[in-house]
Amino acid sequence: MLEELKKISDEITKIIREDSFCYNIEPFCLKDAVLSYPMCAGKRLRPAMLLWACGLLGGDVEKAKYAAAAVEIYHNWTLVHDDIIDNDDVRRGNPSAHMGLKNYALKNYSLSDEAATKYGVDFAILAGDLQHAWANYFLLKSVSLGVPSDVVISICSDMAFYASTGLVSGEALDIDFSYRNIEEIAVDEIERMIFLKTGVLLNFAISTGAKIALSTCSRDDERINRLMIFSTALGSAFQLKDDWLGIYGDVVKFGKPIGSDIISAKPTLLIKEALSSSNTEQNAVIKSYLGKPDLTENDLKIIRKIITETGAEQSIKDKIARYKLKAESIMESFPDSVYKDNFLDLNRYLECREV
Amino acid sequence: MLEELKKISDEITKIIREDSFCYNIEPFCLKDAVLSYPMCAGKRLRPAMLLWACGLLGGDVEKAKYAAAAVEIYHNWTLVHDDIIDNDDVRRGNPSAHMGLKNYALKNYSLSDEAATKYGVDFAILAGDLQHAWANYFLLKSVSLGVPSDVVISICSDMAFYASTGLVSGEALDIDFSYRNIEEIAVDEIERMIFLKTGVLLNFAISTGAKIALSTCSRDDERINRLMIFSTALGSAFQLKDDWLGIYGDVVKFGKPIGSDIISAKPTLLIKEALSSSNTEQNAVIKSYLGKPDLTENDLKIIRKIITETGAEQSIKDKIARYKLKAESIMESFPDSVYKDNFLDLNRYLECREV
Repeated sequence: MLEELKKISDEITKIIREDSFCYNIEPFCLKDAVLSYPMCAGKRLRPAMLLWACGLLGGDVEKAKYAAAAVEIYHNWTLVHDDIIDNDDVRRGNPSAHMGLKNYALKNYSLSDEAATKYGVDFAILAGDLQHAWANYFLLKSVSLGVPSDVVISICSDMAFYASTGLVSGEALDIDFSYRNIEEIAVDEIERMIFLKTGVLLNFAISTGAKIALSTCSRDDERINRLMIFSTALGSAFQLKDDWLGIYGDVVKFGKPIGSDIISAKPTLLIKEALSSSNTEQNAVIKSYLGKPDLTENDLKIIRKIITETGAEQSIKDKIARYKLKAESIMESFPDSVYKDNFLDLNRYLECREV
Repeated sequence: MLEELKKISDEITKIIREDSFCYNIEPFCLKDAVLSYPMCAGKRLRPAMLLWACGLLGGDVEKAKYAAAAVEIYHNWTLVHDDIIDNDDVRRGNPSAHMGLKNYALKNYSLSDEAATKYGVDFAILAGDLQHAWANYFLLKSVSLGVPSDVVISICSDMAFYASTGLVSGEALDIDFSYRNIEEIAVDEIERMIFLKTGVLLNFAISTGAKIALSTCSRDDERINRLMIFSTALGSAFQLKDDWLGIYGDVVKFGKPIGSDIISAKPTLLIKEALSSSNTEQNAVIKSYLGKPDLTENDLKIIRKIITETGAEQSIKDKIARYKLKAESIMESFPDSVYKDNFLDLNRYLECREV
């Protein structure tokens, strides 16, 4: 399955590189920023799920290729804007879009650090806007691969109405939570935010592949429903595992700083669970670390120990296992195929991954 | 014609208010921000031009209504993001989107001014993103008014490929110019930037109305070409008049601060022309005011006098008159109709307007 992902990733890179959308973008640094995330491949999970959903329902995956590129570029604009909002300076081992553009401004104009930061943010807003348009453009090009016009229109409409309102609301709720007291935020509010922020785009990807396979304008189909329940469960397991890795992970393998959710007092389900299952003493210790700007290796050991003692770690692991089982049993209900095998492998992989 | 504009504006407001796109947006302050510019009507020039182009070519303007709402909302997302980039705190007499959201954060969370500013910018980025998606959604809904699917797809594709790459490149060049020495920027660079920033969206609006009228997927039509030359001339006259009003206008009527182009040392064609037509002494005086943070009424008098003496004011007025004549003669080539009269009135109005 990882090999298959790699193959898809290479193909998506090729499709993106060969597309003419960026030709007319000026100035050069903006064009460069628009291409940067899409060309620097991440896991390409979303295009893969789109293509596999198409294949699983007997569709011609060749027809779904532009839609797969579209969902990847769509994901990328949300990352560019999120990185600005979250002040994230690194993405996939490189400077994030706004940091890359800031560095460009420092190199090419004699600007103060503050002015260069503003230049970087301004251009990164515009780069994300262009990727947003590019995602639409790619989806529309599906007509040239033989997807009927009305199906393309229904998918574009899903992207605008379902994916955008969901995903952007999820990001907005996430920001809003960071200004609220973690104990006042209910678990179901967090679950809903996570679904909007990650689940919605997976559902969009999978339903798009399915619509192309079935040549239908409606998601009101029993198979599409089953696939969306599958991707929701997969997405929830993925996110919970991410929360777990963010505290218990290996910094070298995970590639992101461990403990950053504690430092930013982020209301993850793991931290919420730990707070609500803790006794008075444990509760006080956890809270004393939430928002602490620099976390030592020793601090992290103490936090890990306490979260485990509250039972929260096991509870999250149990939840992940339940989501995985749910996803598996739904996928088993589809006829055997290489696409089904890929989905089942992906589901197993997401639970045991260390990255 | 102004009455007709008002009627269209009311209708667009009604269409926007009744649309369901915003129902699911959370939290409430984000939904509010998404609706804010579209509901607070500006001139609604772009939707009017779209509808009149449709009528002019014999189309059913009812079919073009969602597209007209789409072009207005599209214009709005670019304003929301531009206002962040340009640090503009006021829009149509109200706080701009990021300022409104900052005020909301100050009222509802106990934040420092800096943190509230960040909150305002972050949410305004997301509000613009949602309006961008909304514009797509409205355009796609044109199918329900009887516009053929393939025509809708071609218009959506124009919006992504032609309007977005053009308009966003124009905004990026405008930012880039502000970091360069005004004397190193060529006149044709400025003209190109202005065309991208304002002309492209007028061309998109007018060609969309025309495509709906002719039920065609291609802009490669002699009438559409003529209409686009018309809107390019109209847009150039509009922009030059804006530059002129920005220095010679009446602050009360114009509604924007006079002299702000001097304060921000913005390379408008009027200022460029004045610099290149000036003698050494005049040149030194103009430059001494460029970038001056506070401009008195007396400073403005001196600047006006010098710009007039260099001949730049007359030169810009002559250019406006030539663009107006060009637009008029093209419009005269179309058969008589109420839509033609509206376009001719608009063209006359744009030259003599004081607001």
